[in-house]
Amino acid sequence: MIGGGWSRRVAEIQPFHVMEVINAVKRLEAQGRHIIRLEVGEPDFPTPPPVLAAAHQSLERDQTRYTAAMGVAELRQAVADWYRRQYNVRIDPARIVITPGTSGAFLLAFGILLDPGDRVAISDPGYPCYPNMIRLLGGEPVPVAVGPEHDYQLSPKLLKPAVEKGLKAALVTSPSNPTGTLISDAAMAEVITLVEGHGGYVISDEIYHGITYERPARTALEFSQEAIVINGFSKFFAMTGWRLGWIIVPPSALRHVESLQQNLFISAPTLSQYAALAAFQCEESLKQQVQAFDRNRIFLVEQLRRLGFIIPVMPTGAFYVYADASQILQRTGHPDTRSFCADLLEHSGVAVTPGLDFGQHKARQHLRFSFATTMENVQEGVARLTAHLQGFPAPTSNSTGRGAKKLSPARGGEKDSTR
Amino acid sequence: MIGGGWSRRVAEIQPFHVMEVINAVKRLEAQGRHIIRLEVGEPDFPTPPPVLAAAHQSLERDQTRYTAAMGVAELRQAVADWYRRQYNVRIDPARIVITPGTSGAFLLAFGILLDPGDRVAISDPGYPCYPNMIRLLGGEPVPVAVGPEHDYQLSPKLLKPAVEKGLKAALVTSPSNPTGTLISDAAMAEVITLVEGHGGYVISDEIYHGITYERPARTALEFSQEAIVINGFSKFFAMTGWRLGWIIVPPSALRHVESLQQNLFISAPTLSQYAALAAFQCEESLKQQVQAFDRNRIFLVEQLRRLGFIIPVMPTGAFYVYADASQILQRTGHPDTRSFCADLLEHSGVAVTPGLDFGQHKARQHLRFSFATTMENVQEGVARLTAHLQGFPAPTSNSTGRGAKKLSPARGGEKDSTR
Repeated sequence: MIGGGWSRRVAEIQPFHVMEVINAVKRLEAQGRHIIRLEVGEPDFPTPPPVLAAAHQSLERDQTRYTAAMGVAELRQAVADWYRRQYNVRIDPARIVITPGTSGAFLLAFGILLDPGDRVAISDPGYPCYPNMIRLLGGEPVPVAVGPEHDYQLSPKLLKPAVEKGLKAALVTSPSNPTGTLISDAAMAEVITLVEGHGGYVISDEIYHGITYERPARTALEFSQEAIVINGFSKFFAMTGWRLGWIIVPPSALRHVESLQQNLFISAPTLSQYAALAAFQCEESLKQQVQAFDRNRIFLVEQLRRLGFIIPVMPTGAFYVYADASQILQRTGHPDTRSFCADLLEHSGVAVTPGLDFGQHKARQHLRFSFATTMENVQEGVARLTAHLQGFPAPTSNSTGRGAKKLSPARGGEKDSTR
Repeated sequence: MIGGGWSRRVAEIQPFHVMEVINAVKRLEAQGRHIIRLEVGEPDFPTPPPVLAAAHQSLERDQTRYTAAMGVAELRQAVADWYRRQYNVRIDPARIVITPGTSGAFLLAFGILLDPGDRVAISDPGYPCYPNMIRLLGGEPVPVAVGPEHDYQLSPKLLKPAVEKGLKAALVTSPSNPTGTLISDAAMAEVITLVEGHGGYVISDEIYHGITYERPARTALEFSQEAIVINGFSKFFAMTGWRLGWIIVPPSALRHVESLQQNLFISAPTLSQYAALAAFQCEESLKQQVQAFDRNRIFLVEQLRRLGFIIPVMPTGAFYVYADASQILQRTGHPDTRSFCADLLEHSGVAVTPGLDFGQHKARQHLRFSFATTMENVQEGVARLTAHLQGFPAPTSNSTGRGAKKLSPARGGEKDSTR
């Protein structure tokens, strides 16, 4: 029988809830409203000028044809040098593949690893594209619920049941999106030992490396040469729209990854590759940006806690705060953070991402604030949030902060007039 | 059980034979040899200056963040306008998705269409990435042997057995890579009627549109609004390294394609999107380039036929000649064109792609010449090929041109001295 309609697996992909938020933002902005955007995962500062200059130069040289599938040799070398300087790890540039964004790197990683039905452990909460990509390639995402007691990261204890049922790979994201937490060195070492000991691979998503506040993140390659490491230019290097990332694979995977890259992408965008060569010279100015983010982080966490959000683990990387809003839900009568976010945006003009985008585990009571913006915006966001919550009754002393009960909304007309 | 090693499906991907050729080219060039490159599928002329200017301007505006997943609105509108001007077809820009190259467009097409085991008919010979992508997404490529009697294109007659066994989609490439032939209007209409009549979809790869010599190619959208059309900026617009394409889907697929684009790519490269806005102004200069290709085409086909290559159908699009070399194999004693190509490159410095890259059907007796280069290069390639063949005995009168018999190489030391 010939089928009609679209594939079941694409129909199963849930749209990101943040898209609802973004669509509402656009609608409100079109009405002339000024929205404070704390929902986005994109650094709010321009491309470093040396990168722009390198791009101009590259255009003047008309460096616009396809590159070698694995990437421009100088850039692969520059990435290898970066690992030497940042982590004191020597990587043969032959193992570094330049990809169209880390998105492309993930397609390669899952492509070289997964046959139909192969299982991949991912943390819940985690980045929502992982399970969708795994399913698209016929694999099976295995969400592992992670909580504050493990810094929202995989641990050998949490992983063990999944490993015993069979795992092709486990995916570590440190710093994590959405929690901003880092995995401890001990947990990283033990997770790698456990997974590799059972013949699986650890994929380490290191896209938020460089954006850390208390200690630098360590690459999985410091722990194992079999680790598959993914990183790119979108976050620390602030080059989102350039769509450029990389993947480092064990030597035995090189033939496969090259062949997959040729078939899936031909090569990464040429201009982006030449421009990125200049990115490594910008380390100092980028670090200053991270210091600015750090001030946002300290301020935002303090203020959110003051307002009744529960943040059990201080985020020490990325530019996110993953906040437990159960007390807030109780106070405001919202059944979940999706509803709370919609209300906050509509009435007070602050955009935040509901936890449902990041998994199932306690997702409805969490939300993610991004502070990849100016201190002024963060302050204004907090002021609006404070005013928004003042429209609801003050927290009672028996609020424990978990397990929001549904309360009927208690809003006076008075409150509306302040919005 | 936890597995080790890499996925079976990636291990099954055959490396492109042209990569062997390209690696040999690099080795020879490193030795100081001058190689005539007729193996590449990349236009040998620079990015149009207005596109470079637009890219400079876009850099000055720091238009380097992510765009909307579906692409920059102005560019989607510009593509819609292009369909109106070129084909007199009205397409709602909402149906146009800007992708990272046509490679990205194919991943979207197969992603929205295929569940595991779904069958996709492709022509053999055809573009080698198709079957690899289809397999990667769990689908099953169904090669349909096509010969000169159908202009190397799918036809209802050839497709019928496959359709009756069940097809999710059939892929038409017109002009074709590697044969440069166009599908007739009648065949396109009938193929669409047949496939859609059985509940399947026609995917039309129109990447070589604009590079046609005797009549313009017609878009599948002139025949059906259910057709899935893929095109991009790499060929006619000469923007290979910018990695920018598009896909046009039926309205019912939009939600799926947007969600897949978000998950797989986030968005296409931003700078490329703004630069491409200028590409549509360059039509006149690009058409002059096509006229230059046309002179190459006439000359190359005539010369190859003179040398004993069989070209039953004049290519009328793209920049390829797909030549049956069976007489040449007979004369030179090579078992297949892969061996002949290696010898031709090594001894006479002409790079050509062996037919094996394009499928199984009579692939070993064919090779693909690309004439996307200067007339000077084409002439020098022909001169070297002529000299190369002079080292072998002249064709006998009973050469029928099919079914090369293995002959022992008959080369004198004299010939070597001429190389």
